[in-house]
Amino acid sequence: MRPSIRLRPLINPRPKIDLPPTDHRALGTAQELFTSSVYSPGSPLFLPNGTHIINKLVSFLRTQYLQYGFREVLTPSIYKRSLWEVSGHWQNYKDDMYEVTGRGASGDMDGEAGEDESYGLKPMNCPGHCLLFKSQTHSYRDLPVRYADFSPLHRNEVSGSLTGLTRVRRFHQDDGHIFCRPKQIKSEIASALGFVDMVMTTFGLGPYRLVLSTRPEKDFIGSIDMWDNAESQLREALDSTRREWALNEGDGAFYGPKIDIQLQDQAGKWHQLSTIQLDMNLPRRFELEYQVSEGEEDYNPATPGVATPVLIHRAIFGSLERFLAFLIEENGGRWPFWLSPRQGIILTVNQDDAVVRHAKEAAAKFSGFRALLNDGNSPPRPLSSNDSTFLVDVDTSPQTLGKKIQRAKQMKYNLIFILGSRDVADRSITVDVTGQMQSKTDPDAQQFQTLMGAQVGEEALKNPRAVKLKVDDVHPLLVELEKRFL
Amino acid sequence: MRPSIRLRPLINPRPKIDLPPTDHRALGTAQELFTSSVYSPGSPLFLPNGTHIINKLVSFLRTQYLQYGFREVLTPSIYKRSLWEVSGHWQNYKDDMYEVTGRGASGDMDGEAGEDESYGLKPMNCPGHCLLFKSQTHSYRDLPVRYADFSPLHRNEVSGSLTGLTRVRRFHQDDGHIFCRPKQIKSEIASALGFVDMVMTTFGLGPYRLVLSTRPEKDFIGSIDMWDNAESQLREALDSTRREWALNEGDGAFYGPKIDIQLQDQAGKWHQLSTIQLDMNLPRRFELEYQVSEGEEDYNPATPGVATPVLIHRAIFGSLERFLAFLIEENGGRWPFWLSPRQGIILTVNQDDAVVRHAKEAAAKFSGFRALLNDGNSPPRPLSSNDSTFLVDVDTSPQTLGKKIQRAKQMKYNLIFILGSRDVADRSITVDVTGQMQSKTDPDAQQFQTLMGAQVGEEALKNPRAVKLKVDDVHPLLVELEKRFL
Repeated sequence: MRPSIRLRPLINPRPKIDLPPTDHRALGTAQELFTSSVYSPGSPLFLPNGTHIINKLVSFLRTQYLQYGFREVLTPSIYKRSLWEVSGHWQNYKDDMYEVTGRGASGDMDGEAGEDESYGLKPMNCPGHCLLFKSQTHSYRDLPVRYADFSPLHRNEVSGSLTGLTRVRRFHQDDGHIFCRPKQIKSEIASALGFVDMVMTTFGLGPYRLVLSTRPEKDFIGSIDMWDNAESQLREALDSTRREWALNEGDGAFYGPKIDIQLQDQAGKWHQLSTIQLDMNLPRRFELEYQVSEGEEDYNPATPGVATPVLIHRAIFGSLERFLAFLIEENGGRWPFWLSPRQGIILTVNQDDAVVRHAKEAAAKFSGFRALLNDGNSPPRPLSSNDSTFLVDVDTSPQTLGKKIQRAKQMKYNLIFILGSRDVADRSITVDVTGQMQSKTDPDAQQFQTLMGAQVGEEALKNPRAVKLKVDDVHPLLVELEKRFL
Repeated sequence: MRPSIRLRPLINPRPKIDLPPTDHRALGTAQELFTSSVYSPGSPLFLPNGTHIINKLVSFLRTQYLQYGFREVLTPSIYKRSLWEVSGHWQNYKDDMYEVTGRGASGDMDGEAGEDESYGLKPMNCPGHCLLFKSQTHSYRDLPVRYADFSPLHRNEVSGSLTGLTRVRRFHQDDGHIFCRPKQIKSEIASALGFVDMVMTTFGLGPYRLVLSTRPEKDFIGSIDMWDNAESQLREALDSTRREWALNEGDGAFYGPKIDIQLQDQAGKWHQLSTIQLDMNLPRRFELEYQVSEGEEDYNPATPGVATPVLIHRAIFGSLERFLAFLIEENGGRWPFWLSPRQGIILTVNQDDAVVRHAKEAAAKFSGFRALLNDGNSPPRPLSSNDSTFLVDVDTSPQTLGKKIQRAKQMKYNLIFILGSRDVADRSITVDVTGQMQSKTDPDAQQFQTLMGAQVGEEALKNPRAVKLKVDDVHPLLVELEKRFL
């Protein structure tokens, strides 16, 4: 038994320091994205708006994974200590790991070894993916095998270094591991670099730079031949991007060369984002193998019938938390339509019953779902995940329209719709197509106007500050908008 | 330092016992859904097919949450021990919890209390959700506040009790917590019961029964008035379902009454699935409050301006792992189209270049995405998460068509397409509309035939064993199919 400890006050702390309003912590509070607690230092708590954006980021990647041949897996959070001894983490990374104990896993060696062993809380996914790869038989024809994983990871950073979403103890990576044949390295790296470029373009990030780190002078594993072969494939893949890249000679890890992708922020400071890392160590420690026929170039007479795959670790966003912090600051708290937790709002001009009812019906139509009234009536049909849905709010409060517009703009709604008594009869709604889409760049707003022109006709845009739309036409318009902005 | 321990062999164990082929563990292996490891007892590793189904289940719930007013949050895995003392878990649930230690959180009281404190690995989400609720100010007008969370949870079950996906140490709940006013209990319970019914209908599960557990004779918290009020609202909500329900008098927890939803499996055995649990304890322990005006019925002169919300814990699936085990056994390893990791396969009649190329192009069109060829060419446009995608494989192997069909049926593909030389010229493909959709019930196959009739015309169905389709028409057909079967 430990001495009982004093309970601390149950208030979530507000940062005492004055944050500049452009800091992601200040914007995160203003937009109700996340909060923190004394009970979970370094582990942020994401509020609904922040969770919505993280889910959109994950869903975006999941969709792209289909094209890039990754398949998602779901792996444990805690593994027995002996796994971390196999991987080498226990010997080399123990200080940054958390140890997990409990009844039957006290760490004291009373009973059988494996039973009493404590666990390590995972700081990375690779050992688990090695177990998965090993659980099945693989022919050389099935390679590359590509696993993706969004599991929460824990690294015990010292408390003084913790900052908002950028230095945390619990985070999620868009983690991927590729098990491939030695000759597939180049095409896998090229594909990963293409993925990086697509993500940078999609999120309007950049410029970025590519840095290759090569074999350290000593204490590396594997033959120089293996290194030379791997490095030349990395160089070729880098050359094929037709971008400049830098060489960081001798700065690779002992187990393989790597490519770092570094991103410049608004202030010109460079940040590490994506990383692509070759690994010739873990596959040997885990005794991974694939079946290969005589005559193939990776056939090795010393191990007839089987060969050892190369492992590539890669992450595009890197830490989702850090990527989110970057996006928050890059966008100044304004979100592109497809990521936004506040995609649209309907403001009523007055509080007439018919207007309020019409506004609520319009919100249900725009959003693609109908909020339940909790009246115990028969449940709605289940929505299909293929149905497009949007987050559309309603403001029917008694404030003046001017105040409502001001508040909606402060809250950074992408689209503001206005509904008055005259709209009820012809089932319409009004939108000011100028000054909408609170996104970073003018082109976004222009795209919106172009799309509106194509949908409602240039005639309707003659008075762009008050364009009348049929309520039924808005949902398809939003679907187009999301696709166009993604 | 501990004594170093012997490394155990790195093979994932196959169960030694002979499992009946209808057992979810046997089906899970046959369908490559999940595996297990000596390094993570009680924590299954999900292979891509199993992860696909779990993701579909989560995505289904996320979509429904929009209608039911839940908003998802993302909360930490580990919290300082003092949080679990506030919630009472440390005093009452410690044996089933894992303790987490590490540099700076050793559990030894050398420095300041909170800093050195160890962590508890969360067995449930409620304390985290209480912190979230407490981090913002809530007016009575904003209630109910409903949080949903799919975080992994850990409970240290004794090793002898672990079984497949049904008794595990790490699992995911479709966990939800509702913070509401006392008078909102009935409508929230009614809404939850409606949600349960919609899920049961969607997944073809049932019959199920409802059981109400009421105030224990002694050692309960709160006044008898509070209990009577809460229980009468639960009774009314149950009555409003127009289903029979059973009373389990005095069997409620000390902190509130509950409703259990029990499901009968094929063999007639009852299982606990959903649960709805009132909690008058945690809101007090966490000193939660909402603002309420004088004149409202929950205004309390003893605490002017603020009142304590009622907390409702509720899960519809319960444990996703256990729900998956249930689905596997209910469906005998066959999946409805929308959940299936093997939705379709294209079999080539021969290996002619044109046929193989046409088959690959058709697979890309059916699935809604194009697998990258890793040739380093410019990356594809990002797919929108609003684009509908399907998992469609191709079998261009040199085996006979008969063998390929047999194998595709063994692998339980929902739809089998056949492509021969004559299909290349007119960009078509052939499907046998009988004997497709390897789903549990005949109505599924009938629905498919009806849909096909509506799409291609009854004329085309004259020879139902070889219906010719235009390749371009298949993707929209699959979209319709998914919506119809969900």
